[in-house]
Amino acid sequence: MWSYEAPLAEMRFVIEEVLQAPGQWRQMPQFEELDAEMARQILEEAAKFASGVLAPLNGAADLEGCSWREGEVRTPQGFPAAYRAFVAGGWPALACDPAWGGQGLPQLLSMALTEMLASANHAWMMYPGLAHGAYECLKAHGTPELQQRYLPKIVSGEWLATMCLTESHAGSDLGLLRTRAEPLDTAAAASGGELRVTGSKIFISGGEHDLSDNIVHLVLCRLPGAPAGSRGLSLALVPKLLPDGRRNAVRCTGIEKKMGLKGSATCAMSFEGASGWLVGEPHRGLAAMFLMMNAARVQVAMQGLGHLEAATQNARRYAAERVQMRAPRRPEGAPAAPADPIAFHPAVRRTLLTLQARTEAQRMMAYRGAQLLDEAHHHPDPARRERAEALASVLTPVLKAFLTHHGHHGADAALQVWGGHGYVHDYGIEQSVRDSRVAMIYEGTNEIQAIDLLQRKVLDDGGRRFGLWLEEIGDEARRCEALAPLRAAAGALRQGLSGLRELAAALAAARETDAEAPLRAADDFLHAFGSLLEGWAWAATARAALRHEDRRHARRLEVARFGLEWLLPGIEHHLRLASVASRAELPWAD
Amino acid sequence: MWSYEAPLAEMRFVIEEVLQAPGQWRQMPQFEELDAEMARQILEEAAKFASGVLAPLNGAADLEGCSWREGEVRTPQGFPAAYRAFVAGGWPALACDPAWGGQGLPQLLSMALTEMLASANHAWMMYPGLAHGAYECLKAHGTPELQQRYLPKIVSGEWLATMCLTESHAGSDLGLLRTRAEPLDTAAAASGGELRVTGSKIFISGGEHDLSDNIVHLVLCRLPGAPAGSRGLSLALVPKLLPDGRRNAVRCTGIEKKMGLKGSATCAMSFEGASGWLVGEPHRGLAAMFLMMNAARVQVAMQGLGHLEAATQNARRYAAERVQMRAPRRPEGAPAAPADPIAFHPAVRRTLLTLQARTEAQRMMAYRGAQLLDEAHHHPDPARRERAEALASVLTPVLKAFLTHHGHHGADAALQVWGGHGYVHDYGIEQSVRDSRVAMIYEGTNEIQAIDLLQRKVLDDGGRRFGLWLEEIGDEARRCEALAPLRAAAGALRQGLSGLRELAAALAAARETDAEAPLRAADDFLHAFGSLLEGWAWAATARAALRHEDRRHARRLEVARFGLEWLLPGIEHHLRLASVASRAELPWAD
Repeated sequence: MWSYEAPLAEMRFVIEEVLQAPGQWRQMPQFEELDAEMARQILEEAAKFASGVLAPLNGAADLEGCSWREGEVRTPQGFPAAYRAFVAGGWPALACDPAWGGQGLPQLLSMALTEMLASANHAWMMYPGLAHGAYECLKAHGTPELQQRYLPKIVSGEWLATMCLTESHAGSDLGLLRTRAEPLDTAAAASGGELRVTGSKIFISGGEHDLSDNIVHLVLCRLPGAPAGSRGLSLALVPKLLPDGRRNAVRCTGIEKKMGLKGSATCAMSFEGASGWLVGEPHRGLAAMFLMMNAARVQVAMQGLGHLEAATQNARRYAAERVQMRAPRRPEGAPAAPADPIAFHPAVRRTLLTLQARTEAQRMMAYRGAQLLDEAHHHPDPARRERAEALASVLTPVLKAFLTHHGHHGADAALQVWGGHGYVHDYGIEQSVRDSRVAMIYEGTNEIQAIDLLQRKVLDDGGRRFGLWLEEIGDEARRCEALAPLRAAAGALRQGLSGLRELAAALAAARETDAEAPLRAADDFLHAFGSLLEGWAWAATARAALRHEDRRHARRLEVARFGLEWLLPGIEHHLRLASVASRAELPWAD
Repeated sequence: MWSYEAPLAEMRFVIEEVLQAPGQWRQMPQFEELDAEMARQILEEAAKFASGVLAPLNGAADLEGCSWREGEVRTPQGFPAAYRAFVAGGWPALACDPAWGGQGLPQLLSMALTEMLASANHAWMMYPGLAHGAYECLKAHGTPELQQRYLPKIVSGEWLATMCLTESHAGSDLGLLRTRAEPLDTAAAASGGELRVTGSKIFISGGEHDLSDNIVHLVLCRLPGAPAGSRGLSLALVPKLLPDGRRNAVRCTGIEKKMGLKGSATCAMSFEGASGWLVGEPHRGLAAMFLMMNAARVQVAMQGLGHLEAATQNARRYAAERVQMRAPRRPEGAPAAPADPIAFHPAVRRTLLTLQARTEAQRMMAYRGAQLLDEAHHHPDPARRERAEALASVLTPVLKAFLTHHGHHGADAALQVWGGHGYVHDYGIEQSVRDSRVAMIYEGTNEIQAIDLLQRKVLDDGGRRFGLWLEEIGDEARRCEALAPLRAAAGALRQGLSGLRELAAALAAARETDAEAPLRAADDFLHAFGSLLEGWAWAATARAALRHEDRRHARRLEVARFGLEWLLPGIEHHLRLASVASRAELPWAD
């Protein structure tokens, strides 16, 4: 019943027509051999893997779950074989540097791949999910020895990786971490000497499993004499298997019973004087780790989008087939019947269109984010790189929080389309609701993303980088103004822009006398900005669709206009609440 | 970790101070022996049962689930014993007529009991959950023989009951039902003769279990020659055990794997020429059933409230204990520390206050609904009875949809307070998110409640009954106007009132030329009305709290004012969207 078909036509439309990425690839030496046709072929192959190999395992894996026995973890049936196929297909290397065995393709394609993996099987994709972050981190901060030893195996997918941050008393507050790392030889530690790592970590996704022989743990820990708090953290690489092939002193002591992602082993890990090696400078582990977390945040955003897409397409299929009651109106040509497809009923139609419009807009937002990362890393013009970097840094927390919010709440809203059947495992949607929930929490809770956005990226920056986004959106409004069918959209974007600009100014002023004001308003600020970005995406999509006259593009235009008319007004709600939050006293919880 | 303490002080505050129910009981002969003190004692006993007996079973029952073997169902450990204790305590009889062995107490107390059961163990309360509806239905429509045979056993709790409506192809659209009932003797069927019932039903809560010997099924079915559609449905009583003690030809053919409520057996039932007896007139089964469904709808609303309360109190406890990071401000007297309770952090505080304010308002709304039912049935003045009936009929769909929506979404928002721990079963909140989801679907989906409210209760009625609510809310605004600290609240209520009045008028006008307009706008209309009722509840609560000067009442005032300032503005969002929906074309789903 639940199935997944990769939305290749929509992905291509965004990549080629809305973002016009192929033209941009030609400007970047790294990608000059890539063209639209090759990108299509890559996505088609990825779609075969996601729909054909991963999606069929998803429901059964949820029922089976993972099992733990004496430190070993068994993943659900089919997971190891699917991973072997993933490695054989060369997918881990997609966006990695050819110097380390990668294919050097754009993040944009990697993110489209990630979307498909998340739609097809979120639990499975947790295992390879952190490899790219570990790759980025080691590539930037590892010693040449560590890079030589680990990067090729991570890039090929032979070995997998984890991020070991959380301890039971230290989640959002990494400054409280207690895991210790002691140099075998004090003098040599900073220059790559061996460490002994001791401590307990929890919530380690893929901390132990049967997909790869070796697992490379990147562990936040404290060196002797480290300052207290987060400025005293270092990062150590602790492999499951030592270079000589022996097991390292790291053990999985149990796995969690979770709401969802039951096929993904969430491990408690015990480091018992395990051998490790420093990555980056002593006490600068957080900076090295954040590089990894930034890549991970965009990836988590794609999990939100993946759930939204899967929920949307399955709800649309179900609503077209399920008949209940006569609808007040039928589409032209639909025959009269004692009961109509529920897709004809206004309440269901509104839900389906909302899901579809958000999916399309959020795909455009996310792919634009990936495109900016490519530009930031590979554009020959330093000014373009800098601008892209600035835009991406503002967008990242919005993508993480906004897309995971709507991924979960969209799946939850879609469930209603199935009625009572939606509550039953066989139909698939309830699993999507459960699986999608965690993405609002991990890699920095959505509340922390909102604070990062408003405090650090907008207010601390005096609005400079944020202003670049307002420019982008203003440019889109100007382009729409010139097109009669989109004049109303231009007006709505302008209104949203001025509302957001005023809000940012009000918050900057409020902060002068009330340090808490932005913290009270941060969530609504993020959602207001996310709504405006959706409006911008619908406008850009509508504009691209207007260039064609076929049925498919007419439908894209219709969905985008629905978004502009029915959903963009939601921005007013968040602007109003943020404004209340900036002024009103917030009582203490009792 | 997860625990439940019945909020007795808050319940008493609503019952005694806000609704001033004890004074009203004295005006109704049925309740004249009841006073505030006796009501307190009853609620205290109920609290002991809910917190002491039911709550400790909740988490383990979710992990264990129900099991099915050859037609028999085993419920989780402790469920049958808890049910024996429930019966021994006399709880099933609480609000039943003394003529049938009941205690004749108000619905108001019964609903407070229901709230506690739902907070403590939603899965368990599904088993006795339909007994009261079956009691109402049989009492109103059963033949004297059926009443004699079944009512005393249902009232005492010796036997349990189900509602058998849904078939796999017929959920919201009962007109599609196929289950047949054939009279053994055609002439005698209408006057109580035996029927043979044949068909398959799904989603039957407690269709089979090990809590009571007998189970009384009320089955929607068709008599021979019945008209097609919902006007051809009859209601049959089909017991698991026949009057002579033999097993009837009804079998549980399986139970569902569900998102939540795993301790509640959701059964597929096969009626294989089972003996049954007609309840009510032939072909008038739906009317008889709706009586049962109306009682059930208010009960489902209490499930929403029960989850909201449980999520709120557990989140408050966790946030007071969990320390992470320094807060920008601390309450007076709180010592400086390297990390503060997360309850000090603005984002968490805002979540906690939102949960608390909604819980308090929605409790007042629900209890007011129960009080209206008592008044409608028992007030000596026919005009008062009629007015109460009219107010209750409008309120019922709002309570069902609004409270189950916020029960689920409130639990989901509360989960965020636990961070990653919230995603793990041990902490309890993820179960609440899963368990609460189904209440948005069963007993009529929330979309169907919204259509019932707007189409039937507001527009078809020319606004008469709805106008009574606007009067009630207007009266509250007037009372607040007279109190300086609540003048702003009065203004906000008036603004909401006029917005809602304009919206209803606009929808009535739109419907003249566009039959779909109310169907597009119904959900937002319901949420706008629900928001205004919350505002009314906060105003009434604040007014009652102002009459005292102690700390507890000061806190109630603070929470109510938070609701009025931070949450009531949400009404504008729904008014705006309903207005868009009343005008804008809604494209077809594709």
